[in-house]
Amino acid sequence: LHSAFSIKNSVCAPQGFFADGISAGLKANGKKDVAFIYSDTPCDISYVLTTNTMQAAPLKHLKQQNELKTNFVLINAKNANAMTGQAGIDDINEILQSSDHPLTNPVMSSTGVIGVRLPKEKIINALQNFDLSVQNGNSAAEAIMTTDSFSKSIAFDVVLDDGSSFKIGAIAKGAGMINPAMATMLCFITTDAAIPKADMDELLQSTTVTTFNAISVDGDTSTNDTVMLLANGKSGAYDKQAFKQTLHNVMQHLALQMVKDGEGAKKMVAFNVTGAKNDEEAQIAAKALSNSLLVKTALFGEDPNWGRIAATVGASGVTAFEDKLNIAYNDVKVYDQGENLFSPEIEEKAGKILQQDQFTIHCDLGVADGKFRAYGCDLGYEYVKINADYRT
Amino acid sequence: LHSAFSIKNSVCAPQGFFADGISAGLKANGKKDVAFIYSDTPCDISYVLTTNTMQAAPLKHLKQQNELKTNFVLINAKNANAMTGQAGIDDINEILQSSDHPLTNPVMSSTGVIGVRLPKEKIINALQNFDLSVQNGNSAAEAIMTTDSFSKSIAFDVVLDDGSSFKIGAIAKGAGMINPAMATMLCFITTDAAIPKADMDELLQSTTVTTFNAISVDGDTSTNDTVMLLANGKSGAYDKQAFKQTLHNVMQHLALQMVKDGEGAKKMVAFNVTGAKNDEEAQIAAKALSNSLLVKTALFGEDPNWGRIAATVGASGVTAFEDKLNIAYNDVKVYDQGENLFSPEIEEKAGKILQQDQFTIHCDLGVADGKFRAYGCDLGYEYVKINADYRT
Repeated sequence: LHSAFSIKNSVCAPQGFFADGISAGLKANGKKDVAFIYSDTPCDISYVLTTNTMQAAPLKHLKQQNELKTNFVLINAKNANAMTGQAGIDDINEILQSSDHPLTNPVMSSTGVIGVRLPKEKIINALQNFDLSVQNGNSAAEAIMTTDSFSKSIAFDVVLDDGSSFKIGAIAKGAGMINPAMATMLCFITTDAAIPKADMDELLQSTTVTTFNAISVDGDTSTNDTVMLLANGKSGAYDKQAFKQTLHNVMQHLALQMVKDGEGAKKMVAFNVTGAKNDEEAQIAAKALSNSLLVKTALFGEDPNWGRIAATVGASGVTAFEDKLNIAYNDVKVYDQGENLFSPEIEEKAGKILQQDQFTIHCDLGVADGKFRAYGCDLGYEYVKINADYRT
Repeated sequence: LHSAFSIKNSVCAPQGFFADGISAGLKANGKKDVAFIYSDTPCDISYVLTTNTMQAAPLKHLKQQNELKTNFVLINAKNANAMTGQAGIDDINEILQSSDHPLTNPVMSSTGVIGVRLPKEKIINALQNFDLSVQNGNSAAEAIMTTDSFSKSIAFDVVLDDGSSFKIGAIAKGAGMINPAMATMLCFITTDAAIPKADMDELLQSTTVTTFNAISVDGDTSTNDTVMLLANGKSGAYDKQAFKQTLHNVMQHLALQMVKDGEGAKKMVAFNVTGAKNDEEAQIAAKALSNSLLVKTALFGEDPNWGRIAATVGASGVTAFEDKLNIAYNDVKVYDQGENLFSPEIEEKAGKILQQDQFTIHCDLGVADGKFRAYGCDLGYEYVKINADYRT
């Protein structure tokens, strides 16, 4: 048993952490575009990276630092430093080594356009200008935004039964490209819990599957996705179950914020697949639904077109049968084991649910006990607009 | 050696075939919505059906007729007769048995909305009104259109070295949902070639892989996709190589017509992947490119954003390396084994290619000899508009 309280200051809430965001001239209009997270005590670090085979330079650099303790993460927006080869890694080393700050094994994280070298001088200049005594997590959250329409952060104070406590804070960015295999999204989680490195690795991996890897905006994975957990142990407190539960809440909150901020999205939809042959098949079907263009455009059109739900489950290739399938919008059943339940009243009820900002589409396959819940959004004109001219 | 000449009359070009389309009142405004193809001599029949596990009633009915000879195919638009269970199959039997025409093992094919029973009386009435002596393939092609903006048909006269000849004709429908695994598309091919049944099966399967299964509009597969080949043997002529080549030309032509007619699409793009580990990996990468929303919206925005090409190849999971990859728009190379080739001139040249209606994106993985060419289109506001309110 433990208690968790939502608190302020995101990544700066845990003891010994500092963060800020400033403008380095990468974004237009002098917006913040470079951020740091600093810990006055070196941290253990765990991370989950994109499954994209074209991993960006900062990810390659990060993997080279494995098994080390770090006290500093530098983050920039507007340039992904991806497809830049060894030169991209050299740029990172040159930038990080340029600093007079007391950095221990610093690492970097980037998001933005692919295939262009980092504007090194601007970032070196910004790094020099950072004040490592500032604790402004929100400012860091703003600086890492790209197509995000709002910044994303959260923190919890976890009080254990023995009265000891630790904190977990996080910032994240992500709006487009959020995907089944976790796409252009960055998430930085800090904690002062005295968590063993093995628990960090285990819990970050498993929680990513049910949170960031369960959301989808457009089905594409990026070269730069990174979820990073930094633990400096300063609170001296730890309980695995409490940490696991709170980490899930932190990551789930940020994942749903990303779906809500899906490029041009107006609706957040949970795709709750149950009764699948196993959890893996449930996951395949749920993600197929959250990724289907025909489902997404029907959501945008507020059309309770359950035929597209059934067809998408069928197209996903999982074990499913026309005479065992059930489909419902929230509590309104529309298809039941071979029977179309649409009457004018039911269709109107279903249509009203689709007009809401948030709802759940239930899809019970009636085969066995496998289940998975994915999250997605509608796709409308705004999505096309944002992505047709993102680079410019 | 053989000669093939493009001729008129599509499915009615081969000897002994008849076809027409009429209005049964399924489409608004009295448009044609029901069609037939009739042969005065029973035909061998081969087909390739959707991989969607929720196969529609006409597909189940068709599979029950296997190994039989048929002389009649009835096709309707506006209603897919999918997710209708045994009742959907019973409806087909009732419709086909209602006819006074001399039908031998008749089969049916449907496209349209999912989950609604067929308007039986209207179709029975239309079937009764068909004149089986009419040879109007174009009328049949019009009747099977759904969101198609133009009808699709073709025919060839194949003259062999010994002076004998046979004909192949075809009609097709498909605009939305065209997909890597062949989606809501129907294609009916007729021939009077004296082709053995085993060759029919073999050639229809293999040609589908490189034609209809290589095109993509939105990555979803439908419940109703059907490619059907009917052969009545009346010409007495046959040559396997000539048939194979001509069948490929027929199916490739119709596949590209479908891409051109992709819902709201303005551009047809070939994704030519070479240098893959093997042909399978080339196919995975090429289809990932033709299905990527970020690639499709960049095409719509006429933005030579090659980073999205690289990231999509990476996300597809095939064997690929940043320092071996080559990317080009037509003959304009933009990325070469780790090097971004963009200069203001090159970017302008690439941008001009993207403004064209048709072009090729070359992606050489530099790994081995695997290759595949997929076809796709851009995705713009029109796609959203068409699909947000298709049902209504």
